[in-house]
Amino acid sequence: MNPKEIFKALQTEIETTQYGKHPAELYDPISYIMSLGGKRLRPMLTLLSASLYTDQWRAFLKPAIAVEVFHNFTLMHDDIMDCAPLRRGQATVHEKWNANVAILSGDVMLVQAYQLMLAASPERLPQILARFNRTAAEVCEGQQLDMNFETRWDVTEDEYINMIRLKTSVLLGYALELGGILAGADAASCRLLYDAGVNMGLGFQLKDDLLDVYGDPEKFGKQVGGDIISNKKTFLLIEALDRASGQTKETLTHWLNQTTFDKAEKVKAITNIYESLDMRALTEAKIDAYFQTGFDALGQLPSPANTAQKEVLMAFARQLIEREN
Amino acid sequence: MNPKEIFKALQTEIETTQYGKHPAELYDPISYIMSLGGKRLRPMLTLLSASLYTDQWRAFLKPAIAVEVFHNFTLMHDDIMDCAPLRRGQATVHEKWNANVAILSGDVMLVQAYQLMLAASPERLPQILARFNRTAAEVCEGQQLDMNFETRWDVTEDEYINMIRLKTSVLLGYALELGGILAGADAASCRLLYDAGVNMGLGFQLKDDLLDVYGDPEKFGKQVGGDIISNKKTFLLIEALDRASGQTKETLTHWLNQTTFDKAEKVKAITNIYESLDMRALTEAKIDAYFQTGFDALGQLPSPANTAQKEVLMAFARQLIEREN
Repeated sequence: MNPKEIFKALQTEIETTQYGKHPAELYDPISYIMSLGGKRLRPMLTLLSASLYTDQWRAFLKPAIAVEVFHNFTLMHDDIMDCAPLRRGQATVHEKWNANVAILSGDVMLVQAYQLMLAASPERLPQILARFNRTAAEVCEGQQLDMNFETRWDVTEDEYINMIRLKTSVLLGYALELGGILAGADAASCRLLYDAGVNMGLGFQLKDDLLDVYGDPEKFGKQVGGDIISNKKTFLLIEALDRASGQTKETLTHWLNQTTFDKAEKVKAITNIYESLDMRALTEAKIDAYFQTGFDALGQLPSPANTAQKEVLMAFARQLIEREN
Repeated sequence: MNPKEIFKALQTEIETTQYGKHPAELYDPISYIMSLGGKRLRPMLTLLSASLYTDQWRAFLKPAIAVEVFHNFTLMHDDIMDCAPLRRGQATVHEKWNANVAILSGDVMLVQAYQLMLAASPERLPQILARFNRTAAEVCEGQQLDMNFETRWDVTEDEYINMIRLKTSVLLGYALELGGILAGADAASCRLLYDAGVNMGLGFQLKDDLLDVYGDPEKFGKQVGGDIISNKKTFLLIEALDRASGQTKETLTHWLNQTTFDKAEKVKAITNIYESLDMRALTEAKIDAYFQTGFDALGQLPSPANTAQKEVLMAFARQLIEREN
C-alpha cells in the first residue's frame, strides 16, 4: 500500500470527523489543533502495520484516527503544563482561548479518542482498549517524569531513556501493535510490532534531541538551540554532564547556572562542549542502534506478514531518522 | 439488597483499588481525592439498579467504581477551573500539589475509569462504552456552559436546566442505566432507568441550589449563602431575575453589581428578595416535580425488575431530596 494514499485518506477522515458543535468553546479547539497538520505519524504506522496483513486498511481509519486524536489531546494538555506559546508555528489552545478551555477541550478529546476506538470490531475491543489504557497511562507517567526532571541535575541515561520510552515511544509501539490487532495478526506478531515501534520511537526522540542542536535553521521549523537555552534535559545534556570533567565541566556548569545570558553565545558555547565530547557521533550511534533493533523486530515478523509491505513500512520508518524537522 | 452492605463493599473496593505507583506525583492525588469520602452516590445507584435484576451485584463493583472515578476526575479538573481551594473540607489537588499535577492526575484518572469499565462482560462493552462516552462528553459540555454563564446575565430557565442536565444529571442517569445494562435488562428498561436518573438528578441539583440559601449552617457543611456571595447563577437567582420588578428588581441588581460589600448583609438582602418572590416554594415544587417524573419512570419498570428492590432504590433516592447537606 502506498503511504501517500494512506496519508490522503487519513487527512480526509480527520477533516470530515465531527468532533461536536455546542458549546463552541469546547469543540472549536479540537478542530483547530487537529487542523494544524503534522506528519500523522501514528495513524500512518497503524495503517501501514495493518497493511502487512490486509489490503482492507480503510476499514481501520477510525481507530487509527483515535491514536492521532489521543496524541493531540496530550499535546493540548502538555502545552498548558509547559506554558508553550506555539504549536506547529501557531498559537497553542491555551494561548488562543485560555487554560480552562484547553483543559476541558483536551478532556473531551480523550473521550472522543475512546469513541473512535469503538469503530473496531467488538471481539477485538477488550484487547485494543486494555492495551490503549496501559499506553495512555504510561504517556501520562512520562510527562510527569519529564516535569520532575526539570528540577533535577542527577538524571541518569537510564532514567532519561525510560522517560522518553513512556512519554513518546510506547504510543508509537501501540500504533503499530494496533494495526496488527485490527488486522488479526497473532499475539507474537503484535508483540514484535510493539517492540519495533518502541525502539524506533526511542530513536525518533533522540533524533529530536539531536535536531535541536544540529538542525538546519532553514528546515528545522523551530529555533535551533531552544533546548540549550532552556536547560532542557536532553540526551545530549545528560550525557555531557556525565562525561565532562575539568575545565569542560566547569564551563558547562557555568552556562547552566546563568540566569541572564546572550542566547546565541550560550548555544554556541554548549554546542562547542558537545563537539568536544563527541556527542553528535555518540547520539547518532544510539539512534542507529535503536532503529536497528526496531528493524530487526520487523524483520522477524513471520508469515502472513506481506514482505513487500514490510519494505514499505521500513522505508516509511527510515524517514523518521533521516528527517530534518 | 441492603444499601449499607453495598456502600461497605464499594468503600472496600475503592480502598483496595491500585491506582498506580510511580511517579508518586501522578498517582498520589488519585488515592487522595478518592479517599475524601462522599456519598458514593453514583456507584450506589449503579448497584441498586443492578439489584433490581440480580442479587449478584458484587460482580459489577469495578464498573460501578469506574463511574465514581470518572466523577472524581471531573471534580479534580473542575476545581482547577473554578480555582476552588477546598473539596469536602480538604485542600483541592491543585492547592495541595499544583495545577499541572491536577491536570495530569485527572487525565490518568479518566483513563483508569475506562480501564475499570473493561471488567464488564465483553459482549456488553460496546454499549456500555458508547453510552459512557456520550455521557462523559455531555458532562464536559455542561461544565463549559456553566463557565460561559458566569459572564452572562440573560440565562433563561431552559438554558439553566439544560446546563445542569448536562453537568450533573446525565451521569446520575448513566449510573442507573449502567446497572441495568450490566444486569442484562432490556433496552426499554435501561431507557427508563436513564430517564429516572436524569430527572432525579435535576431535582438533586435544584436541591443543592436551595440548600445554599436555606441550609442549616450546622448541617450544610459549606458556607450558607456562598452562591449568593459569588453571584453564582443558580435556579433561584435566574428565576428571581426573571420575576422581580420595580423596587425589588432595583435592589437585586444593586446587590449583584456591588464589588465590595458586607457578605452577611448581601446574603440577608437577597434571601429577603427570594422570600418576597416565593422562590423557596417555587423551587421545592420544581424539585418535587422532577423527582416525581423520575419515580414514575422507576414505577413503569416492567418485570423482571424486582418490586421489593424498586422500593429500596426509591427509598435511597428519596434521601437525595430530603438531605440537609
